Amino acid sequence: MAGDSIGKIFKVTNWGESHGKAIGVVIEGCPPRVVIDLKEIQMDLNRRRPGQSNITTPRNERDEVEILSGVIDGESTGAPISLIIGNEDKKSRDYRKLKEVFRPSHADYTYFMKYGIRDPYGGGRSSARITAGMVAAGSIAKKILREKLGVEILAFVKSIKHLTFAGEAEKVNFSAVEANKVRCPDPLLALEMEDLIVKTMKKGDSLGGTIEAVLKNVPVGLGEPVFDKLEADLAKAMMSINATKGFEIGSGFSGTTLLGSEHNDAFEMLDEKVVTSSNHSGGVQGGITNGMPVVFRVAFKPTSTILQKQKSISKDLKNVDFTAVGRHDPCVLPRAVPIVEAMAALVLVDHALRFKKI
Amino acid sequence: MAGDSIGKIFKVTNWGESHGKAIGVVIEGCPPRVVIDLKEIQMDLNRRRPGQSNITTPRNERDEVEILSGVIDGESTGAPISLIIGNEDKKSRDYRKLKEVFRPSHADYTYFMKYGIRDPYGGGRSSARITAGMVAAGSIAKKILREKLGVEILAFVKSIKHLTFAGEAEKVNFSAVEANKVRCPDPLLALEMEDLIVKTMKKGDSLGGTIEAVLKNVPVGLGEPVFDKLEADLAKAMMSINATKGFEIGSGFSGTTLLGSEHNDAFEMLDEKVVTSSNHSGGVQGGITNGMPVVFRVAFKPTSTILQKQKSISKDLKNVDFTAVGRHDPCVLPRAVPIVEAMAALVLVDHALRFKKI
Amino acid sequence: MAGDSIGKIFKVTNWGESHGKAIGVVIEGCPPRVVIDLKEIQMDLNRRRPGQSNITTPRNERDEVEILSGVIDGESTGAPISLIIGNEDKKSRDYRKLKEVFRPSHADYTYFMKYGIRDPYGGGRSSARITAGMVAAGSIAKKILREKLGVEILAFVKSIKHLTFAGEAEKVNFSAVEANKVRCPDPLLALEMEDLIVKTMKKGDSLGGTIEAVLKNVPVGLGEPVFDKLEADLAKAMMSINATKGFEIGSGFSGTTLLGSEHNDAFEMLDEKVVTSSNHSGGVQGGITNGMPVVFRVAFKPTSTILQKQKSISKDLKNVDFTAVGRHDPCVLPRAVPIVEAMAALVLVDHALRFKKI
Amino acid sequence: MAGDSIGKIFKVTNWGESHGKAIGVVIEGCPPRVVIDLKEIQMDLNRRRPGQSNITTPRNERDEVEILSGVIDGESTGAPISLIIGNEDKKSRDYRKLKEVFRPSHADYTYFMKYGIRDPYGGGRSSARITAGMVAAGSIAKKILREKLGVEILAFVKSIKHLTFAGEAEKVNFSAVEANKVRCPDPLLALEMEDLIVKTMKKGDSLGGTIEAVLKNVPVGLGEPVFDKLEADLAKAMMSINATKGFEIGSGFSGTTLLGSEHNDAFEMLDEKVVTSSNHSGGVQGGITNGMPVVFRVAFKPTSTILQKQKSISKDLKNVDFTAVGRHDPCVLPRAVPIVEAMAALVLVDHALRFKKI
Repeated sequence: MAGDSIGKIFKVTNWGESHGKAIGVVIEGCPPRVVIDLKEIQMDLNRRRPGQSNITTPRNERDEVEILSGVIDGESTGAPISLIIGNEDKKSRDYRKLKEVFRPSHADYTYFMKYGIRDPYGGGRSSARITAGMVAAGSIAKKILREKLGVEILAFVKSIKHLTFAGEAEKVNFSAVEANKVRCPDPLLALEMEDLIVKTMKKGDSLGGTIEAVLKNVPVGLGEPVFDKLEADLAKAMMSINATKGFEIGSGFSGTTLLGSEHNDAFEMLDEKVVTSSNHSGGVQGGITNGMPVVFRVAFKPTSTILQKQKSISKDLKNVDFTAVGRHDPCVLPRAVPIVEAMAALVLVDHALRFKKI
Repeated sequence: MAGDSIGKIFKVTNWGESHGKAIGVVIEGCPPRVVIDLKEIQMDLNRRRPGQSNITTPRNERDEVEILSGVIDGESTGAPISLIIGNEDKKSRDYRKLKEVFRPSHADYTYFMKYGIRDPYGGGRSSARITAGMVAAGSIAKKILREKLGVEILAFVKSIKHLTFAGEAEKVNFSAVEANKVRCPDPLLALEMEDLIVKTMKKGDSLGGTIEAVLKNVPVGLGEPVFDKLEADLAKAMMSINATKGFEIGSGFSGTTLLGSEHNDAFEMLDEKVVTSSNHSGGVQGGITNGMPVVFRVAFKPTSTILQKQKSISKDLKNVDFTAVGRHDPCVLPRAVPIVEAMAALVLVDHALRFKKI
Repeated sequence: MAGDSIGKIFKVTNWGESHGKAIGVVIEGCPPRVVIDLKEIQMDLNRRRPGQSNITTPRNERDEVEILSGVIDGESTGAPISLIIGNEDKKSRDYRKLKEVFRPSHADYTYFMKYGIRDPYGGGRSSARITAGMVAAGSIAKKILREKLGVEILAFVKSIKHLTFAGEAEKVNFSAVEANKVRCPDPLLALEMEDLIVKTMKKGDSLGGTIEAVLKNVPVGLGEPVFDKLEADLAKAMMSINATKGFEIGSGFSGTTLLGSEHNDAFEMLDEKVVTSSNHSGGVQGGITNGMPVVFRVAFKPTSTILQKQKSISKDLKNVDFTAVGRHDPCVLPRAVPIVEAMAALVLVDHALRFKKI
Repeated sequence: MAGDSIGKIFKVTNWGESHGKAIGVVIEGCPPRVVIDLKEIQMDLNRRRPGQSNITTPRNERDEVEILSGVIDGESTGAPISLIIGNEDKKSRDYRKLKEVFRPSHADYTYFMKYGIRDPYGGGRSSARITAGMVAAGSIAKKILREKLGVEILAFVKSIKHLTFAGEAEKVNFSAVEANKVRCPDPLLALEMEDLIVKTMKKGDSLGGTIEAVLKNVPVGLGEPVFDKLEADLAKAMMSINATKGFEIGSGFSGTTLLGSEHNDAFEMLDEKVVTSSNHSGGVQGGITNGMPVVFRVAFKPTSTILQKQKSISKDLKNVDFTAVGRHDPCVLPRAVPIVEAMAALVLVDHALRFKKI
């Protein structure tokens, strides 16, 4: 029983492989009469696009999206929206020799054991290429949230290796994030990060880090007890993104070292609005949004593809030495920022529809 | 659209409130001919039971479970299994005054805003009492996994505040965990933790911490790309437990500071078995189990109920001072250990059924 | 993968067996602040109750329903509503010998082959007894539809064997239906039917028939293309009721002999309202309600339990002669009327919630 | 909450409109290593294709299907299979004037009222054109059922208006069905039917009828109590096909006039196999297949598009006279035969996967 779709009302089904003809998504449950603007979707795709700078993979894809259904005269009709993105720069020759080896910390082995067959071209279905479909669908979700509810969704690179942005998430703005290749809002730190990435790339090694996201103006009441708490669905969505190893909301892991008296968020009236004086809860209480910004962080491991000799096993279960060739990202974080935003938007729009706020 | 059930094949629907007549679960999709032993379920419930020691809430519930359907002559029939647990020690008087105030970092405010009505008795539906149903269902799931696949599921308290168990998860055993009230496998550290809990309780304050879990002998191949990756469903399940703020698998957040060359798990043949020489992946690659132990950690915030004066707001949106009375856990971690195990078992049995391993 | 629940927003999970301790349902997604009146639910249950007249089974069950969760001070809270109905008059001795034989046209053989285990007491899970849970949940659904949308749901016995009510469904009223034991709105025909039932019962034989239902004041717009058309979900719900063999809406099977020019329902304005001059469509067009009454019919086969000698096979696959003993309905139609209403209400309330009319 | 997908394990999501760029389906849950043969799918599509004979609509579509994902070297990989079919012969000019009127017994009015926007080109999403996607997906399902389980699925035209095939469904074979344009297995009756269709077409009128289907070699045990009975899911699938008004299985509506002693299907041993001496049950008992052929019938209303003047209302709610122009089928039955087969296959393969027979 497959798991290629997400969402209960705004339901997105993702299909495609790294080196097939195309990839795409089908969006069910988009409300009718939403203005769908291809250019806006394309803008988000361009932020995820490979080849966008010297610190990303040189694979060159325009990632041009086409709408095949569900939109008439620029407006959604309530019918499923089918979005398709062609695969252009495939270079599948690079992958021929991958057929014979299970790459360390990749999904080659697990896919082969699960399905008894493996698409060796660029990771096939396990490739991060399919996150392009998430970004396209998420772009529509973001737009709906923004236009109908005023919700703002922003993610940024918080850390790469030990280089960590110490600023407050709620004060970060989009232009600061997009002002540099790394998508870290601190320009000096961003330069350091870029420098680290370039140096690591030269050594054929790779880097991990964390992305922080903040969702503002979220209506009170989103999230469903017991098993579809907002943070539960956010966690699931984030852990669906390739290379993620952790999720935390509000105070997260570091909040476990506080006392209750330090951690509790006192309610207070501010300008006739209910707010909390701190936000260790990260905008959710009992799994339901309380109107404060939803703040969470996602951990990304260092990219599995490195250009150094590694030990591994072959398809016929022999120990082998293996050195990867081919194109890859030395650090996925900069390109993952729009993916985190997209997945957050998909979760949020689905919960807003479940709670009939849209 | 509610979210009271979890699982796609082994589906558990949870119902009940803290101070209603009873709580319970309905389990759909339990395979037929599983021997269902009430005593085993009760044993797991006893590990979660309130009033089990001096460091838990004094609310006294026997948490006696009854099977109403789906079992004949001690065996499951394939029909839904309805489990029910009575609520006995309600003391609802304590909660009368709670009707008028929204407690800090509780779900009072969000539930009221979402539903326009609130069950003020012990948190109603948002109470951790309903995790008893999870434990009962999870106990059956654990048994199926153990008997059909040899899977072992073990959780333990890894940290309370700054007191952290530094041992390796894979070497911990059940009897060491159950040997003390805190459920930390290091007996000396457990004493320190107990001491800290007692002292904190006396100050009317509360504590958080982390629970680590390890799942052994998990078959290769569990987990479904793209959105139902095993770690995604584990994350969702853990973030559904009351008071959780974070989830990480394998290397988790700390893995983000490693280089790819340090983090990659090299495959190797060991005794004709495929293993990895390290396990930063935490037993999953591409969202699918690789046969290595699945290791993850869950962050629990300090209990929201503290017996100190706090600022908050009343139901009529006035700033008020509020001091809780009543019974509560100063630290939920010891009782949360079987809940983490139960939720892990529910995720795993569902994925084993999806992959037809059961 | 089991199928014990129905509905996507107003989701009902049914559990229990004929001769277990109890049967019940859990309702997820009931909107908050609905006044839940046990007496109303009981009234519907009494219409389905065994032993209600001389033409139904003499098994005597009070079918008293109890609410275990989801309701506080008489109002729904948005939490799952757990309803339970005890099993009282079990007489399981009658069923001992049934263990050894697969009864003709019963589910004994298919359940045994599917599950490898069989609950022999009164059909176990395959018993029509579990429709009591449907009626209880449907009663709440009917009430919501009536109070929030003014929808009226009415079913009645249209035919028993060849005795057929020729009146127009839309003109039938509740009191005429409930005025006799058979639940046929024509009192003289009802007497004939009753007479036929009594005579057939004396011969140890059984009867089938059809039930017609009409849903009035249904809002325009309910039903979802392509696979959740209103008539598709109604058909599924009706074919879920024990002993049903057919479903038709509007002109149904007889409409296949008309020309398009005879069958088309012309739109016209009547008192500033859109109506159709005929209603061959049965209130749905393209799977979506058009505001006209939804009219459908359901075929019920003659009861499988008859008190005559029949050929069958034993559990060890030998040809045997078999004569049933025990209690049974000679004709399920009179008691099935509230079940048809309940299932229609469950489908309708779910679609009304999906279309945000509630 | 939309309803564009069907199936729980073998899940098909249908997208597209009559006159958009393309239509298609995404199939999730297809087992890996199934040989996918484009030619076989195309053969089924050709049986549904418009313009295939003088008794179908002259709209000319090649309905060429393309596979975009999920298949590598001719075999399924376990990843979603994306199938796409272009729209070629659109002639959208014909539909301009339809923008202003709600056609009788079409979905124009209900779609407009539901979505507040309407795709006027050829019925948009409500067009029977989208059944091409069902046929493509169903073709793969049929193949899996045939190759893995030996299941044979066959449908045929049983009646058009009063012209009714009286033969036994189980004796009909595929070549007799495909030997004529009408797809009725009796060649003389088929000629009469063809003649009737041609004459009716000349008068600008339309015809309805019934299709019968028989599923042979179905494994015992498919179908899930209570709400996913095999006949319930078949009924839902059939009532999802455009223009259907009724469904019956086995004895169906006519079985309601039999006595239980006539209707019951006696079990007997035949060549060491369990069979029933009659098959009024239509191959299902208690919602689960019993190994006998599954036999059912589906009622199709006469096509709504007729070329005669009709009364209707305009978009601004005025009574108007309306005469359709454009291309249409005078009788959908011949082209609906492969659709019925496809939908039956989708239901059956999903249940076979649910019961782990595949």
